[in-house]
Amino acid sequence: MTYFRKNIEAMTGYTPGEQPQGDSGAVKLNTNENPYPPSPRVLEVLRRTDWSLLRKYPDPMANKVRDVVARRFGLRREQVLCANGSDELLRMVVTACVGEGEAIAYATPTYSLYPVLAEIQGARAVEVERSEDFSLPAEALLETGARLLFICNPNAPTGTWTEPDAIAALADGFRGVVVVDEAYADFGPGSGLAVLKDKPNVLVFRTLSKSHSLAGLRFGYAVGPEDLIAGLVKVKDSYNCDAVSVEVAAAALEDEAWMQANVEKVRSERARLSEGLARLGFAVLPSEANFVLAAVPDGDAGRWHKALKARRILVRYWNRPRLSDKLRITVGTPEQNDRLLSGIEAVRKEMAA
Amino acid sequence: MTYFRKNIEAMTGYTPGEQPQGDSGAVKLNTNENPYPPSPRVLEVLRRTDWSLLRKYPDPMANKVRDVVARRFGLRREQVLCANGSDELLRMVVTACVGEGEAIAYATPTYSLYPVLAEIQGARAVEVERSEDFSLPAEALLETGARLLFICNPNAPTGTWTEPDAIAALADGFRGVVVVDEAYADFGPGSGLAVLKDKPNVLVFRTLSKSHSLAGLRFGYAVGPEDLIAGLVKVKDSYNCDAVSVEVAAAALEDEAWMQANVEKVRSERARLSEGLARLGFAVLPSEANFVLAAVPDGDAGRWHKALKARRILVRYWNRPRLSDKLRITVGTPEQNDRLLSGIEAVRKEMAA
Repeated sequence: MTYFRKNIEAMTGYTPGEQPQGDSGAVKLNTNENPYPPSPRVLEVLRRTDWSLLRKYPDPMANKVRDVVARRFGLRREQVLCANGSDELLRMVVTACVGEGEAIAYATPTYSLYPVLAEIQGARAVEVERSEDFSLPAEALLETGARLLFICNPNAPTGTWTEPDAIAALADGFRGVVVVDEAYADFGPGSGLAVLKDKPNVLVFRTLSKSHSLAGLRFGYAVGPEDLIAGLVKVKDSYNCDAVSVEVAAAALEDEAWMQANVEKVRSERARLSEGLARLGFAVLPSEANFVLAAVPDGDAGRWHKALKARRILVRYWNRPRLSDKLRITVGTPEQNDRLLSGIEAVRKEMAA
Repeated sequence: MTYFRKNIEAMTGYTPGEQPQGDSGAVKLNTNENPYPPSPRVLEVLRRTDWSLLRKYPDPMANKVRDVVARRFGLRREQVLCANGSDELLRMVVTACVGEGEAIAYATPTYSLYPVLAEIQGARAVEVERSEDFSLPAEALLETGARLLFICNPNAPTGTWTEPDAIAALADGFRGVVVVDEAYADFGPGSGLAVLKDKPNVLVFRTLSKSHSLAGLRFGYAVGPEDLIAGLVKVKDSYNCDAVSVEVAAAALEDEAWMQANVEKVRSERARLSEGLARLGFAVLPSEANFVLAAVPDGDAGRWHKALKARRILVRYWNRPRLSDKLRITVGTPEQNDRLLSGIEAVRKEMAA
């Protein structure tokens, strides 16, 4: 006897990357956080605002942030929806568009939350393999006939970039909703919004967790046609964004220069880190995100993951097809990346001994 | 052609009470906010914390707050789950326990979000009328055979209190999960937790929005048996509580004295407001919450709602069976309540003229 639905009873749930609390002294390169702090305007807003306003409910639509986003991308407010992280948006679009037994498609390997969302909804996850070079298998995705298609761009955990024009063409031929998950787009060649914003069946999801250094804030936004946004509004929690996050997100988004400067630093370290890893015998995939996916020299990434962890260096590892020989390494500060590279060198010697 | 599920296409969504932004000068007694500010410790935490930590993901389980709650009620951490407001908990339990076409029961009138959550899930809402005095129709609820039963206690919008022993007896005979929504419990005779915490099929949901003056923070928690809590964890968003809210909620919950002092003030004003309304010809239901439900003298509450709004006094009105002759009025500060009472007096003269 269970109190839960069968699909819930059967599932195990999503496993987030390890989050040591407090200052553990670890080199934390496992959850794609930005190594640089958020904009000083964020800290200012937190220090200076009269937070006695917290006794009142927040604006249920977080219009202050919608307006900042609308101005930035030349949209109407009604084309934007704010949420408690883009994870909330991903869950909302599943709830709104996919009934029990219906299909959600995505190309693997990709963000490991997508299948979990399908399980929670009692939907079918239709997985299509990415090509050998991890590029998007557009034809195969078209043929799934799914209600919903997730495209992570740049893709996690591969760092692969798909041209927005190719996504637009795919969306034209797709009968359901296409979600472009742009969590990492600021680190790549740019957002697909310019090309995608007028497609009737495309939603673009963005987050402040990565490029804006605000993973702890939980703030994301969706951009899309007004009727798709209105449908998502129906299923969202009444007051999904709290009053603090609205003020902080608005301040962060207004300080685009701060974000861009950090993105530049990450990009330049991404190149240096990739070279360093290659010198140590790792096969590094070209990445347009704030992480790299790198195959270990001997193919047993689980062993490397454990050995690095013993040295308090945290990276991400999945025991899954096409990933079990690789580590996903977040680009850190120059110091963190150096500690990682020396850690790898030490592990290599240890293994050779 | 629609991109949405049929149930989503057909529904209209929840309508939150009006939230004028900024200081509108209105007397806002429409959404059951606490008229007193949150604990000074909350403001201190916001001012003093080093918020550069926001660049990192928060603890996915908000264990700091779980531990405060566990200590307060003599529970294990695993019996507590934190969420982005108790609205999120309500949504999560529907997702976890009720499949498409299955039944959710509750006694009306009650919190108007419950039917919306059923619609979103594609579930059946089985509504049972509360008795003439708005007490809980336990027998009739038992007979619904629903997968999930919501009991709001004290009930909104009636203010009615049901003895925890009666709820415990009902739960013993109920085959599904019973959620006791205690959003307003601190204003009543107390929490049912002592009686309910060991029931295998009962979850108690609490919020910091009302008694702790933190509606803007979005923070709630569930208490229940470990296996029910574990099931809810499977369906929650990975990082549902942000890092700011965890620090603030912990500080607020530690300052129980501040909360209790505000609750006492609200209780004493609730008595004075009820008397004042009765003197003006309103029939006021006994309330154990931070609001009162009061029938207007002429039975047309819609007209009163409008007339008060014209005087910038906001109260809540529903054009629904058993409610269309009543206003739900949040207990404010003495000054706010006085402005409400004079507003009503003025409207009465206006109507008589």
